Amino acid sequence: MSGTEYVNRFRERVRYADVDPMGFAYYGSYLRWFEIGRTEFLRELGTRYRDVEESGVLYPVTEAYVKYALPARYDDPIEIVTRLTRVKKASLRFDYQIVGVDGRLHASGWTVHAAVDRTGRVVRISVELVNLLKCANASPG
Amino acid sequence: MSGTEYVNRFRERVRYADVDPMGFAYYGSYLRWFEIGRTEFLRELGTRYRDVEESGVLYPVTEAYVKYALPARYDDPIEIVTRLTRVKKASLRFDYQIVGVDGRLHASGWTVHAAVDRTGRVVRISVELVNLLKCANASPG
Amino acid sequence: MSGTEYVNRFRERVRYADVDPMGFAYYGSYLRWFEIGRTEFLRELGTRYRDVEESGVLYPVTEAYVKYALPARYDDPIEIVTRLTRVKKASLRFDYQIVGVDGRLHASGWTVHAAVDRTGRVVRISVELVNLLKCANASPG
Amino acid sequence: MSGTEYVNRFRERVRYADVDPMGFAYYGSYLRWFEIGRTEFLRELGTRYRDVEESGVLYPVTEAYVKYALPARYDDPIEIVTRLTRVKKASLRFDYQIVGVDGRLHASGWTVHAAVDRTGRVVRISVELVNLLKCANASPG
Repeated sequence: MSGTEYVNRFRERVRYADVDPMGFAYYGSYLRWFEIGRTEFLRELGTRYRDVEESGVLYPVTEAYVKYALPARYDDPIEIVTRLTRVKKASLRFDYQIVGVDGRLHASGWTVHAAVDRTGRVVRISVELVNLLKCANASPG
Repeated sequence: MSGTEYVNRFRERVRYADVDPMGFAYYGSYLRWFEIGRTEFLRELGTRYRDVEESGVLYPVTEAYVKYALPARYDDPIEIVTRLTRVKKASLRFDYQIVGVDGRLHASGWTVHAAVDRTGRVVRISVELVNLLKCANASPG
Repeated sequence: MSGTEYVNRFRERVRYADVDPMGFAYYGSYLRWFEIGRTEFLRELGTRYRDVEESGVLYPVTEAYVKYALPARYDDPIEIVTRLTRVKKASLRFDYQIVGVDGRLHASGWTVHAAVDRTGRVVRISVELVNLLKCANASPG
Repeated sequence: MSGTEYVNRFRERVRYADVDPMGFAYYGSYLRWFEIGRTEFLRELGTRYRDVEESGVLYPVTEAYVKYALPARYDDPIEIVTRLTRVKKASLRFDYQIVGVDGRLHASGWTVHAAVDRTGRVVRISVELVNLLKCANASPG
Protein backbone atom coordinates (compact mmCIF):
# COMPACT_ATOMS: atom_id res chain seq x y z
CA MET A 1 0.00 0.00 0.00
CA SER A 2 1.51 3.30 -1.05
CA GLY A 3 0.41 6.75 0.08
CA THR A 4 -2.90 8.48 -0.51
CA GLU A 5 -4.05 11.31 -2.68
CA TYR A 6 -6.04 12.84 0.12
CA VAL A 7 -4.90 16.33 1.14
CA ASN A 8 -5.69 18.19 4.35
CA ARG A 9 -5.47 21.98 4.46
CA PHE A 10 -5.53 23.69 7.84
CA ARG A 11 -5.30 27.40 8.64
CA GLU A 12 -3.04 28.68 11.37
CA ARG A 13 -1.38 31.99 12.19
CA VAL A 14 2.19 32.84 13.19
CA ARG A 15 1.99 33.87 16.84
CA TYR A 16 4.33 36.09 18.89
CA ALA A 17 5.41 32.97 20.79
CA ASP A 18 6.49 31.34 17.50
CA VAL A 19 8.73 34.15 16.32
CA ASP A 20 12.47 34.67 16.84
CA PRO A 21 14.52 37.89 17.22
CA MET A 22 14.88 38.15 13.41
CA GLY A 23 11.10 38.73 13.37
CA PHE A 24 10.48 35.42 11.59
CA ALA A 25 9.01 32.11 12.70
CA TYR A 26 11.54 30.12 14.76
CA TYR A 27 12.75 27.05 12.85
CA GLY A 28 11.35 24.73 15.51
CA SER A 29 7.84 26.19 15.14
CA TYR A 30 7.45 24.34 11.84
CA LEU A 31 7.53 20.98 13.64
CA ARG A 32 4.62 22.19 15.75
CA TRP A 33 2.73 23.07 12.56
CA PHE A 34 3.55 19.67 11.03
CA GLU A 35 2.09 18.04 14.17
CA ILE A 36 -1.09 20.10 13.79
CA GLY A 37 -1.24 19.13 10.11
CA ARG A 38 -1.16 15.37 10.64
CA THR A 39 -3.60 15.58 13.57
CA GLU A 40 -6.10 17.49 11.44
CA PHE A 41 -5.46 15.11 8.53
CA LEU A 42 -6.57 12.20 10.72
CA ARG A 43 -9.48 14.17 12.21
CA GLU A 44 -10.89 14.95 8.78
CA LEU A 45 -10.67 11.24 7.94
CA GLY A 46 -12.76 10.55 11.01
CA THR A 47 -10.32 9.58 13.74
CA ARG A 48 -8.61 11.43 16.54
CA TYR A 49 -4.93 10.79 17.22
CA ARG A 50 -5.85 10.90 20.92
CA ASP A 51 -8.14 7.88 20.41
CA VAL A 52 -5.51 6.13 18.31
CA GLU A 53 -3.05 6.40 21.21
CA GLU A 54 -5.64 5.31 23.74
CA SER A 55 -6.25 2.15 21.68
CA GLY A 56 -2.66 1.14 22.54
CA VAL A 57 -0.64 1.85 19.41
CA LEU A 58 1.50 4.98 19.41
CA TYR A 59 3.10 6.58 16.36
CA PRO A 60 6.20 8.47 17.58
CA VAL A 61 8.27 10.41 15.06
CA THR A 62 11.43 8.54 14.01
CA GLU A 63 12.66 11.07 11.44
CA ALA A 64 11.82 14.67 10.62
CA TYR A 65 13.06 16.92 7.84
CA VAL A 66 12.32 20.56 7.06
CA LYS A 67 13.44 22.67 4.10
CA TYR A 68 12.97 26.37 4.81
CA ALA A 69 12.19 28.51 1.79
CA LEU A 70 10.65 31.89 2.60
CA PRO A 71 10.51 33.12 6.22
CA ALA A 72 7.02 33.47 7.71
CA ARG A 73 6.53 36.70 9.67
CA TYR A 74 4.70 37.42 12.91
CA ASP A 75 0.89 37.43 12.43
CA ASP A 76 1.05 35.97 8.91
CA PRO A 77 -1.80 33.57 8.20
CA ILE A 78 -0.43 30.25 6.96
CA GLU A 79 -1.91 27.08 5.54
CA ILE A 80 -0.60 23.68 6.62
CA VAL A 81 -0.96 21.27 3.68
CA THR A 82 -0.61 17.62 4.72
CA ARG A 83 -0.44 14.42 2.69
CA LEU A 84 0.10 10.81 3.77
CA THR A 85 2.77 9.65 1.36
CA ARG A 86 3.72 6.20 2.59
CA VAL A 87 2.02 3.45 4.56
CA LYS A 88 4.07 0.39 5.38
CA LYS A 89 3.45 -2.51 7.76
CA ALA A 90 4.90 -0.70 10.74
CA SER A 91 5.49 2.88 9.63
CA LEU A 92 3.87 5.95 8.08
CA ARG A 93 5.19 9.01 6.32
CA PHE A 94 3.51 12.38 6.12
CA ASP A 95 4.59 15.20 3.80
CA TYR A 96 3.87 18.85 4.58
CA GLN A 97 3.92 22.27 3.01
CA ILE A 98 3.60 25.54 4.88
CA VAL A 99 2.04 27.99 2.44
CA GLY A 100 1.28 31.71 2.73
CA VAL A 101 -2.11 33.14 1.79
CA ASP A 102 -0.56 34.40 -1.42
CA GLY A 103 0.31 30.80 -2.28
CA ARG A 104 4.03 31.20 -1.70
CA LEU A 105 5.85 28.29 -0.08
CA HIS A 106 7.38 29.04 3.34
CA ALA A 107 8.67 25.53 4.00
CA SER A 108 8.19 21.89 3.13
CA GLY A 109 9.14 18.69 4.91
CA TRP A 110 8.18 15.26 6.08
CA THR A 111 8.01 13.05 9.15
CA VAL A 112 8.30 9.27 9.46
CA HIS A 113 6.43 7.49 12.26
CA ALA A 114 6.89 4.00 13.67
CA ALA A 115 3.98 2.03 15.12
CA VAL A 116 4.92 0.95 18.65
CA ASP A 117 3.05 -0.40 21.66
CA ARG A 118 3.20 1.12 25.14
CA THR A 119 6.45 -0.71 25.90
CA GLY A 120 8.09 0.81 22.81
CA ARG A 121 8.12 -2.43 20.80
CA VAL A 122 7.51 -2.05 17.05
CA VAL A 123 4.09 -3.40 16.07
CA ARG A 124 1.88 -3.44 12.97
CA ILE A 125 -0.25 -0.42 12.19
CA SER A 126 -3.71 -1.12 13.56
CA VAL A 127 -6.32 -2.55 11.16
CA GLU A 128 -8.68 0.33 11.91
CA LEU A 129 -6.08 2.86 10.85
CA VAL A 130 -5.19 0.91 7.70
CA ASN A 131 -8.87 0.78 6.71
CA LEU A 132 -9.26 4.47 7.35
CA LEU A 133 -6.21 5.28 5.26
CA LYS A 134 -7.52 3.09 2.42
CA CYS A 135 -10.63 5.28 2.37
CA ALA A 136 -8.40 8.32 2.14
CA ASN A 137 -6.69 6.73 -0.82
CA ALA A 138 -10.02 6.22 -2.54
CA SER A 139 -11.15 9.82 -2.08
CA PRO A 140 -8.54 12.20 -3.47
CA GLY A 141 -8.71 15.72 -1.96
CA MET B 1 5.00 25.48 59.14
CA SER B 2 5.95 28.60 57.24
CA GLY B 3 8.46 28.85 54.41
CA THR B 4 12.19 28.25 54.49
CA GLU B 5 15.25 30.43 54.34
CA TYR B 6 16.92 28.11 51.89
CA VAL B 7 17.70 29.70 48.52
CA ASN B 8 18.55 27.95 45.26
CA ARG B 9 20.44 29.79 42.55
CA PHE B 10 20.58 28.26 39.07
CA ARG B 11 22.26 29.60 35.95
CA GLU B 12 20.50 29.61 32.62
CA ARG B 13 20.83 31.53 29.38
CA VAL B 14 18.23 33.24 27.19
CA ARG B 15 18.01 31.14 24.03
CA TYR B 16 16.89 32.08 20.52
CA ALA B 17 13.80 29.92 21.05
CA ASP B 18 12.90 31.99 24.14
CA VAL B 19 12.99 35.38 22.45
CA ASP B 20 10.21 37.36 20.76
CA PRO B 21 10.31 39.76 17.79
CA MET B 22 11.15 42.67 20.11
CA GLY B 23 14.46 40.86 20.75
CA PHE B 24 13.56 40.17 24.37
CA ALA B 25 12.58 37.04 26.26
CA TYR B 26 8.95 36.10 25.53
CA TYR B 27 6.77 36.62 28.62
CA GLY B 28 5.89 32.94 28.75
CA SER B 29 9.56 31.93 28.91
CA TYR B 30 9.68 33.08 32.53
CA LEU B 31 7.27 30.31 33.56
CA ARG B 32 9.71 27.81 32.05
CA TRP B 33 12.50 29.34 34.13
CA PHE B 34 10.36 29.24 37.27
CA GLU B 35 9.78 25.51 36.62
CA ILE B 36 13.54 24.98 36.30
CA GLY B 37 14.06 26.94 39.52
CA ARG B 38 11.76 24.84 41.70
CA THR B 39 13.05 21.58 40.17
CA GLU B 40 16.64 22.55 40.99
CA PHE B 41 15.54 23.76 44.44
CA LEU B 42 14.24 20.27 45.21
CA ARG B 43 17.25 18.57 43.61
CA GLU B 44 19.68 20.49 45.79
CA LEU B 45 17.65 19.43 48.83
CA GLY B 46 18.12 15.84 47.75
CA THR B 47 14.94 14.89 45.92
CA ARG B 48 13.90 14.80 42.29
CA TYR B 49 10.48 16.10 41.31
CA ARG B 50 10.30 13.10 38.95
CA ASP B 51 10.56 10.75 41.93
CA VAL B 52 8.06 12.83 43.88
CA GLU B 53 5.52 12.37 41.08
CA GLU B 54 6.28 8.66 40.76
CA SER B 55 5.54 8.25 44.48
CA GLY B 56 1.94 9.17 43.65
CA VAL B 57 1.53 12.78 44.79
CA LEU B 58 1.59 15.45 42.09
CA TYR B 59 2.01 19.20 42.67
CA PRO B 60 0.31 20.98 39.75
CA VAL B 61 0.42 24.77 39.63
CA THR B 62 -2.84 26.36 40.81
CA GLU B 63 -1.74 30.00 40.51
CA ALA B 64 1.14 31.80 38.82
CA TYR B 65 2.15 35.44 38.88
CA VAL B 66 4.97 37.28 37.12
CA LYS B 67 6.03 40.91 37.42
CA TYR B 68 8.27 41.91 34.52
CA ALA B 69 10.89 44.55 35.33
CA LEU B 70 13.77 44.74 32.88
CA PRO B 71 13.63 42.76 29.60
CA ALA B 72 16.20 39.96 29.24
CA ARG B 73 17.88 39.89 25.83
CA TYR B 74 18.89 36.98 23.60
CA ASP B 75 22.03 35.20 24.90
CA ASP B 76 21.99 37.00 28.26
CA PRO B 77 23.07 34.75 31.13
CA ILE B 78 20.46 34.80 33.89
CA GLU B 79 20.21 33.44 37.40
CA ILE B 80 17.01 31.85 38.64
CA VAL B 81 16.70 32.50 42.39
CA THR B 82 14.12 30.25 44.07
CA ARG B 83 12.72 30.24 47.59
CA LEU B 84 10.02 28.08 49.18
CA THR B 85 7.88 30.68 50.93
CA ARG B 86 4.88 28.73 52.18
CA VAL B 87 4.18 25.14 53.16
CA LYS B 88 0.63 24.30 54.16
CA LYS B 89 -1.11 20.96 54.66
CA ALA B 90 -2.00 20.58 51.01
CA SER B 91 -0.19 23.37 49.19
CA LEU B 92 3.20 24.96 48.58
CA ARG B 93 4.31 28.35 47.36
CA PHE B 94 7.60 29.13 45.62
CA ASP B 95 8.91 32.65 45.00
CA TYR B 96 11.31 33.43 42.17
CA GLN B 97 13.58 36.15 40.91
CA ILE B 98 15.19 36.24 37.47
CA VAL B 99 18.41 38.19 37.88
CA GLY B 100 21.01 39.33 35.34
CA VAL B 101 24.73 38.74 35.92
CA ASP B 102 25.05 42.40 36.82
CA GLY B 103 22.56 41.79 39.63
CA ARG B 104 19.70 43.66 37.99
CA LEU B 105 16.23 42.18 38.40
CA HIS B 106 14.56 41.06 35.15
CA ALA B 107 11.41 39.67 36.76
CA SER B 108 9.98 38.28 39.97
CA GLY B 109 6.98 36.09 40.67
CA TRP B 110 5.53 33.12 42.47
CA THR B 111 3.63 29.89 41.93
CA VAL B 112 1.21 28.06 44.21
CA HIS B 113 0.96 24.27 44.00
CA ALA B 114 -1.71 21.91 45.29
CA ALA B 115 -0.91 18.38 46.41
CA VAL B 116 -3.16 15.97 44.48
CA ASP B 117 -3.22 12.25 43.83
CA ARG B 118 -3.38 10.68 40.36
CA THR B 119 -7.15 11.12 40.25
CA GLY B 120 -6.81 14.86 40.90
CA ARG B 121 -8.12 14.72 44.47
CA VAL B 122 -6.46 17.10 46.93
CA VAL B 123 -4.27 15.22 49.43
CA ARG B 124 -1.76 16.09 52.15
CA ILE B 125 1.80 16.85 51.18
CA SER B 126 3.81 13.64 51.61
CA VAL B 127 5.68 13.14 54.92
CA GLU B 128 8.96 12.68 53.04
CA LEU B 129 8.59 16.06 51.36
CA VAL B 130 7.62 17.78 54.62
CA ASN B 131 10.70 16.34 56.34
CA LEU B 132 12.90 17.42 53.48
CA LEU B 133 11.50 20.93 53.57
CA LYS B 134 12.04 21.09 57.35
CA CYS B 135 15.72 20.42 56.70
CA ALA B 136 15.74 23.26 54.21
CA ASN B 137 14.28 25.48 56.90
CA ALA B 138 17.08 24.53 59.30
CA SER B 139 19.86 25.29 56.82
CA PRO B 140 19.49 28.84 55.51
CA GLY B 141 21.12 29.40 52.11
CA MET C 1 -11.80 55.80 30.79
CA SER C 2 -12.49 52.40 32.29
CA GLY C 3 -12.62 49.09 30.44
CA THR C 4 -15.03 47.97 27.73
CA GLU C 5 -17.91 45.55 27.54
CA TYR C 6 -16.65 44.14 24.29
CA VAL C 7 -15.78 40.43 24.42
CA ASN C 8 -13.71 38.41 21.97
CA ARG C 9 -14.13 34.64 21.75
CA PHE C 10 -11.52 32.66 19.84
CA ARG C 11 -11.34 28.91 19.29
CA GLU C 12 -8.10 27.01 19.77
CA ARG C 13 -7.13 23.42 20.46
CA VAL C 14 -4.70 21.90 22.96
CA ARG C 15 -1.80 20.56 20.88
CA TYR C 16 0.71 17.82 21.64
CA ALA C 17 3.37 20.52 21.92
CA ASP C 18 1.33 22.26 24.64
CA VAL C 19 0.94 19.25 26.91
CA ASP C 20 3.10 18.06 29.80
CA PRO C 21 3.89 14.54 31.07
CA MET C 22 0.76 14.59 33.25
CA GLY C 23 -1.21 14.65 29.97
CA PHE C 24 -2.50 18.17 30.64
CA ALA C 25 -1.71 21.55 29.14
CA TYR C 26 1.60 22.89 30.48
CA TYR C 27 1.04 25.90 32.76
CA GLY C 28 3.03 28.15 30.45
CA SER C 29 0.79 27.31 27.48
CA TYR C 30 -1.93 29.51 28.96
CA LEU C 31 0.21 32.63 28.44
CA ARG C 32 0.42 31.71 24.76
CA TRP C 33 -3.37 31.47 24.65
CA PHE C 34 -3.74 34.82 26.44
CA GLU C 35 -1.47 36.37 23.78
CA ILE C 36 -3.67 34.89 21.03
CA GLY C 37 -6.75 36.22 22.83
CA ARG C 38 -5.63 39.86 23.00
CA THR C 39 -4.32 39.77 19.41
CA GLU C 40 -7.67 38.50 18.14
CA PHE C 41 -9.48 41.01 20.38
CA LEU C 42 -7.64 43.84 18.60
CA ARG C 43 -8.08 42.25 15.17
CA GLU C 44 -11.85 42.03 15.60
CA LEU C 45 -11.85 45.72 16.56
CA GLY C 46 -10.11 46.46 13.29
CA THR C 47 -6.43 46.76 14.13
CA ARG C 48 -3.50 44.39 14.01
CA TYR C 49 -1.05 44.35 16.91
CA ARG C 50 1.69 44.05 14.26
CA ASP C 51 0.64 47.41 12.82
CA VAL C 52 0.37 48.91 16.30
CA GLU C 53 4.01 47.98 16.96
CA GLU C 54 5.13 49.24 13.55
CA SER C 55 3.56 52.62 14.37
CA GLY C 56 6.20 52.96 17.10
CA VAL C 57 4.37 52.23 20.35
CA LEU C 58 4.90 48.79 21.89
CA TYR C 59 2.78 47.25 24.66
CA PRO C 60 5.01 44.78 26.53
CA VAL C 61 3.50 42.77 29.38
CA THR C 62 4.43 44.18 32.80
CA GLU C 63 2.39 41.74 34.89
CA ALA C 64 0.70 38.40 34.24
CA TYR C 65 -1.47 36.27 36.49
CA VAL C 66 -3.09 32.89 35.89
CA LYS C 67 -5.43 30.92 38.14
CA TYR C 68 -5.65 27.29 37.03
CA ALA C 69 -8.99 25.60 37.67
CA LEU C 70 -9.58 22.46 35.62
CA PRO C 71 -6.74 20.93 33.56
CA ALA C 72 -7.20 21.02 29.78
CA ARG C 73 -6.27 17.73 28.07
CA TYR C 74 -4.48 17.02 24.81
CA ASP C 75 -6.73 17.68 21.78
CA ASP C 76 -9.44 19.42 23.82
CA PRO C 77 -11.02 22.31 21.94
CA ILE C 78 -10.90 25.47 24.06
CA GLU C 79 -12.31 28.96 23.80
CA ILE C 80 -10.20 31.98 24.71
CA VAL C 81 -12.49 34.69 26.09
CA THR C 82 -10.84 38.12 26.21
CA ARG C 83 -11.98 41.42 27.68
CA LEU C 84 -10.22 44.77 27.93
CA THR C 85 -10.82 45.71 31.55
CA ARG C 86 -8.74 48.82 32.07
CA VAL C 87 -7.42 51.62 29.88
CA LYS C 88 -5.22 54.22 31.54
CA LYS C 89 -2.99 56.94 30.10
CA ALA C 90 -0.01 54.64 29.68
CA SER C 91 -1.29 51.15 30.41
CA LEU C 92 -3.90 48.54 29.50
CA ARG C 93 -5.27 45.48 31.23
CA PHE C 94 -6.81 42.45 29.54
CA ASP C 95 -8.74 39.72 31.36
CA TYR C 96 -9.00 36.19 30.02
CA GLN C 97 -10.90 32.99 30.52
CA ILE C 98 -9.98 29.63 28.99
CA VAL C 99 -13.22 27.71 28.65
CA GLY C 100 -13.95 24.15 27.49
CA VAL C 101 -16.64 23.41 24.90
CA ASP C 102 -18.85 22.21 27.73
CA GLY C 103 -18.58 25.68 29.25
CA ARG C 104 -16.36 24.63 32.13
CA LEU C 105 -13.60 27.03 33.15
CA HIS C 106 -10.05 25.72 32.71
CA ALA C 107 -8.29 28.90 33.81
CA SER C 108 -8.68 32.64 34.18
CA GLY C 109 -6.16 35.44 34.41
CA TRP C 110 -5.04 38.86 33.31
CA THR C 111 -2.14 40.78 31.86
CA VAL C 112 -1.11 44.41 32.30
CA HIS C 113 0.68 46.20 29.48
CA ALA C 114 2.68 49.42 29.49
CA ALA C 115 2.87 51.71 26.47
CA VAL C 116 6.54 52.28 25.60
CA ASP C 117 8.43 53.64 22.63
CA ARG C 118 11.26 51.78 20.87
CA THR C 119 13.77 52.99 23.46
CA GLY C 120 11.67 51.51 26.27
CA ARG C 121 10.46 54.89 27.60
CA VAL C 122 6.89 54.97 28.91
CA VAL C 123 4.60 56.94 26.59
CA ARG C 124 0.90 57.63 26.24
CA ILE C 125 -1.30 55.09 24.51
CA SER C 126 -1.69 56.22 20.89
CA VAL C 127 -4.78 58.28 20.00
CA GLU C 128 -5.73 55.75 17.31
CA LEU C 129 -5.80 52.94 19.84
CA VAL C 130 -7.77 55.02 22.37
CA ASN C 131 -10.38 55.84 19.71
CA LEU C 132 -10.61 52.21 18.70
CA LEU C 133 -11.07 51.13 22.29
CA LYS C 134 -13.78 53.77 22.80
CA CYS C 135 -15.68 52.14 19.93
CA ALA C 136 -15.31 48.79 21.68
CA ASN C 137 -16.78 50.36 24.77
CA ALA C 138 -19.78 51.61 22.81
CA SER C 139 -20.53 48.22 21.26
CA PRO C 140 -20.90 45.61 24.00
CA GLY C 141 -20.20 42.02 22.82
CA MET D 1 37.49 24.29 3.16
CA SER D 2 35.78 21.24 4.60
CA GLY D 3 34.50 20.84 8.17
CA THR D 4 36.49 20.82 11.38
CA GLU D 5 37.45 18.19 13.89
CA TYR D 6 36.52 20.45 16.77
CA VAL D 7 33.72 19.08 18.97
CA ASN D 8 31.59 20.98 21.48
CA ARG D 9 29.89 19.13 24.31
CA PHE D 10 27.21 20.94 26.30
CA ARG D 11 25.12 19.65 29.18
CA GLU D 12 21.38 20.25 29.32
CA ARG D 13 18.44 18.62 31.04
CA VAL D 14 15.02 17.57 29.74
CA ARG D 15 12.54 19.97 31.33
CA TYR D 16 8.82 19.55 32.02
CA ALA D 17 8.15 22.13 29.30
CA ASP D 18 10.03 19.96 26.78
CA VAL D 19 8.07 16.77 27.39
CA ASP D 20 4.95 15.43 25.64
CA PRO D 21 2.05 13.35 26.98
CA MET D 22 3.98 10.13 26.27
CA GLY D 23 6.40 11.31 28.99
CA PHE D 24 9.20 11.79 26.46
CA ALA D 25 10.87 14.85 24.97
CA TYR D 26 8.65 16.42 22.28
CA TYR D 27 10.17 15.96 18.83
CA GLY D 28 10.46 19.73 18.36
CA SER D 29 12.55 20.10 21.54
CA TYR D 30 15.54 18.61 19.72
CA LEU D 31 15.72 21.61 17.38
CA ARG D 32 15.99 23.82 20.49
CA TRP D 33 18.88 21.66 21.70
CA PHE D 34 20.58 21.81 18.29
CA GLU D 35 20.33 25.62 18.49
CA ILE D 36 21.96 25.57 21.93
CA GLY D 37 24.67 23.25 20.58
CA ARG D 38 25.77 25.48 17.70
CA THR D 39 25.62 28.62 19.88
CA GLU D 40 27.88 27.01 22.47
CA PHE D 41 30.14 25.65 19.70
CA LEU D 42 30.73 29.23 18.52
CA ARG D 43 31.07 30.57 22.07
CA GLU D 44 33.82 28.08 22.89
CA LEU D 45 35.63 29.16 19.72
CA GLY D 46 35.52 32.73 20.99
CA THR D 47 32.57 34.34 19.28
CA ARG D 48 28.96 34.94 20.20
CA TYR D 49 26.26 34.32 17.61
CA ARG D 50 24.63 37.51 18.93
CA ASP D 51 27.71 39.50 17.88
CA VAL D 52 27.85 37.68 14.55
CA GLU D 53 24.29 38.84 13.81
CA GLU D 54 25.00 42.37 14.97
CA SER D 55 27.91 42.53 12.52
CA GLY D 56 25.32 42.31 9.73
CA VAL D 57 25.51 38.71 8.48
CA LEU D 58 22.78 36.34 9.63
CA TYR D 59 22.86 32.54 9.35
CA PRO D 60 19.24 31.34 9.17
CA VAL D 61 18.54 27.62 8.98
CA THR D 62 17.72 26.46 5.44
CA GLU D 63 17.41 22.75 6.20
CA ALA D 64 17.06 20.67 9.35
CA TYR D 65 17.00 16.91 9.84
CA VAL D 66 16.54 14.82 12.98
CA LYS D 67 16.71 11.04 13.40
CA TYR D 68 15.14 9.98 16.69
CA ALA D 69 16.66 6.89 18.26
CA LEU D 70 15.91 6.46 21.97
CA PRO D 71 13.34 8.73 23.66
CA ALA D 72 14.73 11.10 26.33
CA ARG D 73 12.60 11.23 29.48
CA TYR D 74 11.64 14.13 31.75
CA ASP D 75 14.57 15.24 33.96
CA ASP D 76 17.14 13.16 32.06
CA PRO D 77 20.50 14.92 31.78
CA ILE D 78 21.61 15.03 28.16
CA GLU D 79 24.74 16.07 26.33
CA ILE D 80 24.53 18.04 23.09
CA VAL D 81 27.49 17.09 20.89
CA THR D 82 28.08 19.55 18.05
CA ARG D 83 30.43 19.46 15.07
CA LEU D 84 30.85 21.86 12.15
CA THR D 85 30.91 19.50 9.19
CA ARG D 86 30.87 21.78 6.18
CA VAL D 87 31.96 25.33 5.44
CA LYS D 88 31.26 26.65 1.95
CA LYS D 89 31.40 30.17 0.51
CA ALA D 90 27.88 31.03 1.58
CA SER D 91 26.73 28.18 3.80
CA LEU D 92 27.57 26.11 6.87
CA ARG D 93 26.48 22.72 8.14
CA PHE D 94 26.45 21.57 11.75
CA ASP D 95 25.97 17.95 12.87
CA TYR D 96 24.57 17.07 16.28
CA GLN D 97 24.14 14.14 18.60
CA ILE D 98 21.95 14.13 21.70
CA VAL D 99 23.50 11.66 24.09
CA GLY D 100 22.40 10.37 27.49
CA VAL D 101 24.76 10.27 30.47
CA ASP D 102 25.11 6.53 29.92
CA GLY D 103 26.44 7.31 26.44
CA ARG D 104 23.35 6.08 24.63
CA LEU D 105 22.26 8.05 21.57
CA HIS D 106 18.85 9.73 21.86
CA ALA D 107 18.94 11.45 18.48
CA SER D 108 21.25 12.74 15.77
CA GLY D 109 20.76 15.31 13.04
CA TRP D 110 22.07 18.31 11.17
CA THR D 111 21.24 21.83 10.11
CA VAL D 112 22.34 23.81 7.05
CA HIS D 113 22.67 27.59 7.31
CA ALA D 114 22.88 30.21 4.58
CA ALA D 115 24.80 33.46 5.04
CA VAL D 116 22.46 36.36 4.29
CA ASP D 117 22.49 40.10 4.90
CA ARG D 118 19.70 42.01 6.63
CA THR D 119 17.71 42.20 3.40
CA GLY D 120 17.82 38.42 3.02
CA ARG D 121 20.30 38.42 0.12
CA VAL D 122 22.83 35.56 0.10
CA VAL D 123 26.34 36.80 0.93
CA ARG D 124 29.73 35.30 1.65
CA ILE D 125 30.49 34.06 5.14
CA SER D 126 32.37 36.84 6.93
CA VAL D 127 36.17 36.70 6.96
CA GLU D 128 36.21 36.81 10.76
CA LEU D 129 34.04 33.72 10.98
CA VAL D 130 36.10 31.85 8.36
CA ASN D 131 39.30 32.61 10.29
CA LEU D 132 37.72 31.47 13.51
CA LEU D 133 36.56 28.23 11.92
CA LYS D 134 40.03 27.62 10.49
CA CYS D 135 41.36 27.76 14.05
CA ALA D 136 38.77 25.20 15.07
CA ASN D 137 40.03 22.99 12.27
CA ALA D 138 43.57 23.26 13.55
CA SER D 139 42.65 22.28 17.12
CA PRO D 140 40.78 18.98 17.15
CA GLY D 141 38.52 18.49 20.20
